[in-house]
Amino acid sequence: MSDKIADATKLIQEFAACWNRHDMKAFASLFAADAEFVNVVGLWWKGREQIQQAHEFAHATFFRDSRLTIEKTEIRPVSESILIARCRWNLTGHTAEDGRPLPARSGILVNVLKTSNGECLIVDSQNTDIIEHQLSRPQ
Amino acid sequence: MSDKIADATKLIQEFAACWNRHDMKAFASLFAADAEFVNVVGLWWKGREQIQQAHEFAHATFFRDSRLTIEKTEIRPVSESILIARCRWNLTGHTAEDGRPLPARSGILVNVLKTSNGECLIVDSQNTDIIEHQLSRPQ
Repeated sequence: MSDKIADATKLIQEFAACWNRHDMKAFASLFAADAEFVNVVGLWWKGREQIQQAHEFAHATFFRDSRLTIEKTEIRPVSESILIARCRWNLTGHTAEDGRPLPARSGILVNVLKTSNGECLIVDSQNTDIIEHQLSRPQ
Repeated sequence: MSDKIADATKLIQEFAACWNRHDMKAFASLFAADAEFVNVVGLWWKGREQIQQAHEFAHATFFRDSRLTIEKTEIRPVSESILIARCRWNLTGHTAEDGRPLPARSGILVNVLKTSNGECLIVDSQNTDIIEHQLSRPQ
């Protein structure tokens, strides 16, 4: 199992590295072909291709100069082949859709990872923004 | 596998049923002892007991009269024992912390489920609010 934890740790580091190079082809290669991804506003992408396209659009526009820092990762095996990796992240350098710079933000990303034949891939991702000093959604 | 899908479907229905009876002991019993839960503002609870306590507080206050409707559930096996159940939900009847009624809201909940010895439990949950007409977090 320690090999699997090491592979999972490397995968999460690679997630941030691809983001920060804005290399969305490499980013998408971290996902299984049928992976799903829900982003911080509840957009639900299905399959590696949709995940790549959505992130390509974001990284050509409001995330073009963004920098993702993984502040903490906890990895937890839940079966022989499946691990849950949960990260607290911080994002800087992003803009509004009109190009206006925005303040740093933080969130929590959960990735469900599957190891098979020595390969580790993301089979599911969901992201949630941290809204400080709130117990539930402010409205 | 069809039995596992049926068990998973029942578990998700039970999630909403416990919520709507505001029976947080029964709600917590749907989770494995070491399950984790991240709510819509990024609060990260670890273990069934924390999950129960946090939901008991919410259901004694701002979720006391809330009603959760699961609008759509998609269940996807990712290994022999692990399934991913993703639901789009709608919540009504909740209030602000000061008791003021709030409008209906929607979100996406991912539950990672584990089946073993004929039992199906949630091993991980993460919730994200849907913010319509946004590509990323509005700030």
